[in-house]
Formats: sequence, structure tokens, C-alpha cells
Amino acid sequence: MTAPAGGAVAFLGPVGTFTHQAVLTWARERGTLGGPGAGSDEEPGAGPLRPEPLGTVGEVHDAVASGAADRGVIAIESSVEGHVVPSLDALVGSPDVVAVDEVVLDVSFDAFVRPGHDPGALTEATAHPHGLAQCHRFTASRGLRAVPASSNAAACRDLAGHQVAYGPRLCGELYGLETLAERVEDFPGARTRFLVLCRRDDAPAVLRGTDAPAWRTMLAVTPVVTGPGVLARITAAFGERGVNMSSLVTRPLKVREGQYVFVVTLDAAPWQPGVRDLFDDLLAAGDSLKVLGAYPAEPGGRGLDGVLPDHVPTGGVRRGDDAATVARGLLW
Amino acid sequence: MTAPAGGAVAFLGPVGTFTHQAVLTWARERGTLGGPGAGSDEEPGAGPLRPEPLGTVGEVHDAVASGAADRGVIAIESSVEGHVVPSLDALVGSPDVVAVDEVVLDVSFDAFVRPGHDPGALTEATAHPHGLAQCHRFTASRGLRAVPASSNAAACRDLAGHQVAYGPRLCGELYGLETLAERVEDFPGARTRFLVLCRRDDAPAVLRGTDAPAWRTMLAVTPVVTGPGVLARITAAFGERGVNMSSLVTRPLKVREGQYVFVVTLDAAPWQPGVRDLFDDLLAAGDSLKVLGAYPAEPGGRGLDGVLPDHVPTGGVRRGDDAATVARGLLW
Repeated sequence: MTAPAGGAVAFLGPVGTFTHQAVLTWARERGTLGGPGAGSDEEPGAGPLRPEPLGTVGEVHDAVASGAADRGVIAIESSVEGHVVPSLDALVGSPDVVAVDEVVLDVSFDAFVRPGHDPGALTEATAHPHGLAQCHRFTASRGLRAVPASSNAAACRDLAGHQVAYGPRLCGELYGLETLAERVEDFPGARTRFLVLCRRDDAPAVLRGTDAPAWRTMLAVTPVVTGPGVLARITAAFGERGVNMSSLVTRPLKVREGQYVFVVTLDAAPWQPGVRDLFDDLLAAGDSLKVLGAYPAEPGGRGLDGVLPDHVPTGGVRRGDDAATVARGLLW
Repeated sequence: MTAPAGGAVAFLGPVGTFTHQAVLTWARERGTLGGPGAGSDEEPGAGPLRPEPLGTVGEVHDAVASGAADRGVIAIESSVEGHVVPSLDALVGSPDVVAVDEVVLDVSFDAFVRPGHDPGALTEATAHPHGLAQCHRFTASRGLRAVPASSNAAACRDLAGHQVAYGPRLCGELYGLETLAERVEDFPGARTRFLVLCRRDDAPAVLRGTDAPAWRTMLAVTPVVTGPGVLARITAAFGERGVNMSSLVTRPLKVREGQYVFVVTLDAAPWQPGVRDLFDDLLAAGDSLKVLGAYPAEPGGRGLDGVLPDHVPTGGVRRGDDAATVARGLLW
């Protein structure tokens, strides 16, 4: 896949967010992109891509749907927080926008200071409260007082001489700051997965032009009737066609109490034979289907697996455990 | 269910959070509780409950597991953001703590001012950046400048005479503030669901003493082998025993790449006959099982259904749609 030259890439701003960093990473991996200061007066179709910060995920969708932006980049899943549900809901609710690529980013904070600051006069650390929480040890080890900011980017932009700001690496370049220390987060290894959106009507051409050894598909399945057995029927259909699900999320529907939409990630492209048969089976059963995205699968190790916090089930029970252990684990 | 008298209820602080509000709501509905200023020198087992603010969800778990707190309250699911994944992971990873009750709360902000403030001199609005984002319209309509705080509770506690702070209703009482306006959030109707935790070894006695018309169970299922068909097998087992799943979340396991734990919510208690049979079936198939919680089901309308933002799938396709519509929806 190649990033289109000269187009705009909409993302959730302000300039200097992790999503902005994802836009730059994606452009570097897939194509070309102008610097963060690239003006909007460049010739469309001729120059590098232009990152366009917008105020909400909804505005990113609208910009892509209307053609005002060629692509949009949104955060969809974090190794720590799970799926970004508002982003998921926006994709489920959008008739005109679909994901055609993904980017996976280390979520790491650098500590920035004003060039020429007095090292003995640093008294405060500033970032979004989430950033402050994630860099608590560094703040404590330097005896700094934590001062909240509206965003990490705003903290970097408005940095005073007696302050240390935490933000994505990008913020150092953007705001002309000096890097005091790299990767200062308490728990390294967190990653976030981003999706690259384009107009649904443009997606077939974009995807057909992409050569990838493996694909993933995000699919929304809305069954006509729910109740015991519906998820069993749907997952059985996957099993029968030999299509692997690597993730499944249920989201309640607003329209009907107790009815759910299932968002499934499958390890194949929508046009591959087993998947086509599976989709036919589900349609024949009366389900409503919508492909939310199709994108090259990240080669091993770049996804979110393997970087997760320790949440292995402990205290679970297995066949053969004694009756007391089983009763304790199962609340019998 | 009755809240135990005289015990401590641990929650994610500081004092004045929505979780604190959930502790008070739960205590009011289920038993007795002292005011937020209740001292820790009360006789255990004799006086009202004491809310104990702690710094992290992990500390709440530890306090419950060690017996330092009789109960813990954690946020588990929001109508807007979906599951609180770190809380889910903490439950999955804890051998000694289990959920025995739930509380559902409207997430609504009131606008507070200092008593005796000069109404003409209000120039700033302050809250956690999330609170500021959720009350953006009120801020704009009054021409206030947004000033971030580390938490909504901190914004209320440190409120200056020229500021308006946004926070849960509770903060007004806690910090002696005057209510300028109620329910000032941009999008009313958001709800958060909280779980009440106790020691796993105490849970059977707590649950057997509870008379409820309907129950819910949260179950972690860790299959021995994964791949195409595993989720189909598990969901088929539910269907065969007529046990309804109302939610399913997949979480990757840290230990083995590509292996998942399924967190399922079922509409029954773990000790009810169909559920016992189902658990036996899953154990016989080799799965590891762990009940994460069992609690009375909220009577109709109090849960998260029906309050969700508009995320009905649009652009989905159905059996009988023409070939072009199907190809567009499925990226064929």
C-alpha cells in the first residue's frame, strides 16, 4: 500500500498527539508526508501528505466521508485499555468510511525542557493527567510537583523554563524542545493500534493495489434475533468455514433493548474464498453484515499480543481439581 | 443483600470521585454508611460503613484480599467507553477477590461555585480534562476559560472564587460549595456500572444471604487450545444448556501469543442447574474456568442498555440486497 501523494490525512488533534505520531509513522512506512508545519496551499496530488488536526473522531469521519481528507487516522485499541469504544462505535455507525490499513505504535513518553533552562531550577512536571499518571516515578524521583495540562501537546507547547513536560517524541521537534530523558513512563511496553480510514467507495481500488502476505478483516454482525444460541450459531459458522476469529466484542444496540452487534476480527481478507462462503452463510441465516475494515496483518510481533499487562487468570479451575477448589472458583 | 455494618469500603479515590458516589449509592440502597468524614476509630461491626479512598485499582483489590477492607467498589463498564479493561484484567488476575453486587450510576456533572462568589466575576471553568470535554457547551455558553485539574474532585476542593468547577453531586456537600447549575454535561444519559468486591472465601455466605429474582454471572473461560472453532465450541455449549450470554469480551493472554481468555456475562447464577451443567461441560472439554462475579441483576431499565450513543450499524447488508450493495458493504 502506498500513501497517496499530496492529500490530507485527518486525525484527532491537537498537533503533537500520539495519533499525530501515528500519522507520521504510517506515512513514513507507506509513502511520503510533509513535515508538521507543511502548509495547506501545496498542490494536491503533487506534494507530500498533509496531516490535518481535527477536534473530534466524528470530524475525522466527516472529513474522510466528504472527501475533504484523503485518509483519516484513529486510535482503535490499546494494549492496556482495550478497544477504544467510541472509535469502534463510529466505524459501526458510518455508512461511508472504512479502514484500509493499520499502524501499531509504542506509547512512550519523553521528558522535554526548554533549551537553555537552568537544570537546578526545574520544579514542576506537566502533562495531561493520564500522562502524569504514567510518568509518576520520574516526577517523584526528581522531586517535581505535578501540574495538569489539557493535553500532552499543550503541556509541551506552553512549557515554562522551570517545567518538565511529558509527551510523544514528536513534540520535541514540533515545539523546539530539548529532550531531558527518553522513555520515562513507569511501565514500558504499552502499544496502541491505529486504523487508517478512507472512503468506502475508494476502498476496493486501494485494497486491490495492495500486496500483502496476510490480511485481517473487521466485521460487524447484527443478528435479526438474539437469545440463547445466537452467538453459538454465528461462531459455529466461522468454525465450519475454518475462519479464525482473533477478537470479538459485543456492543449493545441503541434501537432494541437486549440486542447486540458483534464486532469480530478475522484472520483473512473479505474476498478470500472461505470468508466469502462464511459471509454467504451468515446472510442466508438473516444476519446483517458490514465490513468495517480490511488491512494487511502486521508481521509477527508488531501487534498488541505479548505486550499486555499481567492479566493471566489466576484462581481458575480445571477438570480434575478437587471439589473444594472447584466450588471456590465457581462460587458453587 | 445488606452492606456489612461497621466495615470499610475501599474505592479508587480521591474523595469525591464518581466511584465514591457509587459507594454511597450502594450503601444507601443496601445498608448503612457513615458520611464521608466518618472517622476510622469507629467500632468495627457496630457503626456505619466507612468509605476508604485508595490510589489505584490494585490497592483496592489488595485491601479487599487482605481483609483491610470489607468491600471494594470499582468501575467496570461505561455506556460510552465500554468495559474498563484494567478493572476487568484485575478481576481476571486476582485469585482472592470476586464481585458480589453491582451499582449503576448516572454520570452527571453539576457546576459548583464558592458560596458568596461574585456572579459577575466568574471567568474560568475547571475540572479533569474529561470533565471539561463533557461540559464544553456550558463553558462556552458562559464565556469561561477552561483550566484543567488533576481530577474533578481536586478542582472542587481547590476552587477559587472566580471559577466554576464540574463534578459529581457529592462534591458540593463534601467541599461546602454552592450549586450553580445541575446536569451541565453536553450529552445527558451516560451511565457507569460498578462492581462491589469481597473476599472470594466470604462470597458464598454473602450470596446465599441474598434474595434476588434474577442473577448475573461474570465468567472467565480460558480454552486449552485456540484456533478456528474454539469460540464456536464454547458458545455452542451455552446454547445447548439454554444459558444466555449478554456480553462477551476477548482479552489476549500475556503468556501465550494468540491465546485468549473470554470474559462472558451470563443471565443466571453460577449455582443454578443449567449453569452448573454448562460449567461441567466446559470443564470436561478441558477449559479453565473462573467465576469473576455473581450479583443480582438490576431490574429493567437500570442497566446500560437503552442509554447508548447512536451506534446502530448503518451501511450493513442483508440477504436479498442487490449485488452492488453487497459488494460495497462487504468489500468484495
